[in-house]
Amino acid sequence: MTEELKAYELARKQREISVAEFFEKNRHLLGFDNKRKALLTAVKEAVDNSLDACEEAKILPEVIVELVQMGEERFRVIVEDNGPGIVKAQIPKVFGKLLYGSKFHHLQQKRGQQGIGISAAVLYAQLTTGKPARVTSKIGPGEPAQYMEISIDIQGNKPDTANEKVVEWKKERGTKIEMEVEASYQKGLQSVDEYIKETAIINPHVTIIYTNPKAEQSIYSRSTDQLPAEPKEIKPHPYGVEIGILMRLLDSTQSRSLQSFLTSEFSRVGDGTAKEICQNAGLLPNMKPGEITRQQAEKLMEGIEKTKIISPPTDCLSPIGESLIERGMKSVINAEFYCSTSRPTSVYRGNPFVIECGVAFGGEIPADGAVTILRFANRVPLLYQQGACAMTESITKTGWKAYGLSQSQNAIPVGPAVILVHMASVWVPFTSEAKEALAHYPEIIKEIKLALQECGRKLGMYINRKTRVTRQLERANLFERYIPELADSLAGITDADREDLAKKLAAMLHKPEIKAQLAHEENKEYDEKKKLKLKRDEDAEE
Amino acid sequence: MTEELKAYELARKQREISVAEFFEKNRHLLGFDNKRKALLTAVKEAVDNSLDACEEAKILPEVIVELVQMGEERFRVIVEDNGPGIVKAQIPKVFGKLLYGSKFHHLQQKRGQQGIGISAAVLYAQLTTGKPARVTSKIGPGEPAQYMEISIDIQGNKPDTANEKVVEWKKERGTKIEMEVEASYQKGLQSVDEYIKETAIINPHVTIIYTNPKAEQSIYSRSTDQLPAEPKEIKPHPYGVEIGILMRLLDSTQSRSLQSFLTSEFSRVGDGTAKEICQNAGLLPNMKPGEITRQQAEKLMEGIEKTKIISPPTDCLSPIGESLIERGMKSVINAEFYCSTSRPTSVYRGNPFVIECGVAFGGEIPADGAVTILRFANRVPLLYQQGACAMTESITKTGWKAYGLSQSQNAIPVGPAVILVHMASVWVPFTSEAKEALAHYPEIIKEIKLALQECGRKLGMYINRKTRVTRQLERANLFERYIPELADSLAGITDADREDLAKKLAAMLHKPEIKAQLAHEENKEYDEKKKLKLKRDEDAEE
Repeated sequence: MTEELKAYELARKQREISVAEFFEKNRHLLGFDNKRKALLTAVKEAVDNSLDACEEAKILPEVIVELVQMGEERFRVIVEDNGPGIVKAQIPKVFGKLLYGSKFHHLQQKRGQQGIGISAAVLYAQLTTGKPARVTSKIGPGEPAQYMEISIDIQGNKPDTANEKVVEWKKERGTKIEMEVEASYQKGLQSVDEYIKETAIINPHVTIIYTNPKAEQSIYSRSTDQLPAEPKEIKPHPYGVEIGILMRLLDSTQSRSLQSFLTSEFSRVGDGTAKEICQNAGLLPNMKPGEITRQQAEKLMEGIEKTKIISPPTDCLSPIGESLIERGMKSVINAEFYCSTSRPTSVYRGNPFVIECGVAFGGEIPADGAVTILRFANRVPLLYQQGACAMTESITKTGWKAYGLSQSQNAIPVGPAVILVHMASVWVPFTSEAKEALAHYPEIIKEIKLALQECGRKLGMYINRKTRVTRQLERANLFERYIPELADSLAGITDADREDLAKKLAAMLHKPEIKAQLAHEENKEYDEKKKLKLKRDEDAEE
Repeated sequence: MTEELKAYELARKQREISVAEFFEKNRHLLGFDNKRKALLTAVKEAVDNSLDACEEAKILPEVIVELVQMGEERFRVIVEDNGPGIVKAQIPKVFGKLLYGSKFHHLQQKRGQQGIGISAAVLYAQLTTGKPARVTSKIGPGEPAQYMEISIDIQGNKPDTANEKVVEWKKERGTKIEMEVEASYQKGLQSVDEYIKETAIINPHVTIIYTNPKAEQSIYSRSTDQLPAEPKEIKPHPYGVEIGILMRLLDSTQSRSLQSFLTSEFSRVGDGTAKEICQNAGLLPNMKPGEITRQQAEKLMEGIEKTKIISPPTDCLSPIGESLIERGMKSVINAEFYCSTSRPTSVYRGNPFVIECGVAFGGEIPADGAVTILRFANRVPLLYQQGACAMTESITKTGWKAYGLSQSQNAIPVGPAVILVHMASVWVPFTSEAKEALAHYPEIIKEIKLALQECGRKLGMYINRKTRVTRQLERANLFERYIPELADSLAGITDADREDLAKKLAAMLHKPEIKAQLAHEENKEYDEKKKLKLKRDEDAEE
């Protein structure tokens, strides 16, 4: 074959790839790389969707999750919510088409964002058991409950439905999905049980009724009837918009002048700011957006950069808040000290985000080994890929020695502590569609480090005070041991009463005051239940 | 708004997402998460494509890579090859449509596999500088060189072309792409320079002429004129095929019987094996594939499992080989000991793969800190996400203490060593489209650990022998210091000649023999250039 023909031969092989084909072959990208994780991912995608839908419809979420073991490595996953339901015509696409959804084209703080998750779970079920997903949905008390079985036409990336029918469902409204997947169930740090527990911690307004494959039921009742503040949808902020996107927006806008384009497509741009941008760009405010060339778009970028524009609105985000973070940690971690920080809103690539941190220390937290890290994004626990996450990098690059924890260079600190990090954003930059770890944007890492430092300083002050008092107590204890001998000797040379001398010497140690101070320190930040065990104090006394 | 209306409101928001829109927003998934990495990724995607195309057309690759700094954070990336060229009609789609390519639907060992890489680079250029990619391609000496500028219609995921024309190009054939990207250039472990160097190490048949933004030119000339054995395309192996894919294949096959379906769609299935599978499945070999139900497909899966089928063909892969791995390491690492292992072919999810490892030890490799890890997949260096890679996990989970290196539990071993791991496969399971780290398949981790253990044992034997001899030498050196005193004392009590006594005592130490043995140990595996510096020996003598 001559080489010219080779080019034609290569050309014949070129073909389009459907996104479903792509993810069928690359299912590990979506969190289905092993059987244990597959079970977690399937549950997570369904629960995340349920919580998003309930909150959007302002319904206090009540989610029922059930795992039924069908065979050695086969499970039925059932997730049922009391959300707004899905209109019949949309059901097939929501569950049976990848890259389809309501959240992708809107900047708003949501758990789901890609339009992939739940369809990927349906794809995985189909791939491993050949069975379609069974969906029931009802949009209101007077409406029929719609049932259908959904599978995915892989080459076309479109849904196939079967057995569509109206069924009886006592629920007023809601959606229920059942999938049969190849998986394995195991408790522990990366289990469905842990995911459900952490979800309950970080979402105090949610009730979850969870039945694991061993038929053990856990009920996490909501601890507040207050729905989180509704995160608002925003337009992109001019800072961080890229020229490619700017050119696309200029091309597709319905605004008839550059000035109205700027005010209508971006947040925080009023007429004054728009005029200033145009002036700084050397462009006329009444230019037609469609006629702006690439060179002029570059000038516009420079104009935006030169103009002082206020930060994006902060009410678009719904952070958890310092007190709820501490309450969440106190509900499951029995420590002696807690602190938390909620940073002001910051921006990366035009997207506002908030970083929140919490630290729990001492008490019953094991002192040997690395600290436990709890990572959350938009109220969703992240259980995998800790090593690849910007949150972990920020923790390892913070100097914890100054705050009283041991740490090797660039390593996770060691000691009896739990560190919690939460990122809330209109667009969380994950490193993969499996949504397991944050991408390493410098702006985000900087904010996480600032939050960690704030918590770290509070922790350091606590540990310092406690260490000082503990040392005083240790010295007092050491001296106490010599009191009998000392009293004997003194009695021998002074004729004073031995017992009396011993008592006076003991009083000089001020031990009760020191102990009270220590108890005070440890109690100061301690939880209401007063379960404090002064283990270190007891050790020191032995 | 009632809650029924809420369901309709949600429905109105549902929309399809184009894959280009998806990756525009998620460019970090494709390796464009920071400016330094973006430069590397753009170069890597172009070079990988060039090498694949040359090898497929059996042309010894000569690739010219040039980076020109255009502004503080703006670079022009130019990659030119002597490959087979691309026929005109295909040029737009190859560079301007995501999920389009020749490699996705074929099981064959290739650098590229997704049909995303180079279009993603074009997308990134467009996003950050607004400029289209400029492509020139020529498919043979008598053919015209085609030039065009390509940008991507994001919402449609399709190419837009401009300025198409025939240009003069002295080259006989080849393809050249120029992109202008926002990026930053920096030397070091994750730089373009490092990528080019490691590419040259692992591809001894390639010539690369590289000019960095400081106008420093490096020429890596090929050290062999032998193209690697051509990796053959294969059909999937029945083991590891999943029920979803089996059902899809049954549905779309042109075979008219189950038996011919099995022999034509899978590798290693002849008529005998096909009949055995059918028998084990309790199905008739002459059933029509299109009529097989899900339950019957499940039986077919069981039948496959029960049948002994030989492993996939091994000639489909083109591993580097033990001697080339050692030669590659010797060309850049000045160590005292080298060893390597090329494992037999193994299988994960029906995909054959080969793991190869190499270890270099001592010499000029720094002894403090963790060992250096070099990771490669299908001859491509992996420079990012070391922590998330199955190769790294396999290294940390191997017990290196037994082989003479220090190691904390589950950590990267410490010492003067470089560990190289290469995976060759018809389908490398990356954790993201950025192709930076291997997914954690148990079958792959097992093979890597076996390869590491083989190298580890060789290393351990070397270190043991060397330690033993070094200790002998140390003891001899220690005793040697006392010879003058001892000779004096002996001379005093025996009348023998002091000098003569000293000589005889020295001879008893057998020091030259021990030194020769040490030199022998260290030379045994040492490179041909005999650059050996017996530093430890000299230290011992001081």
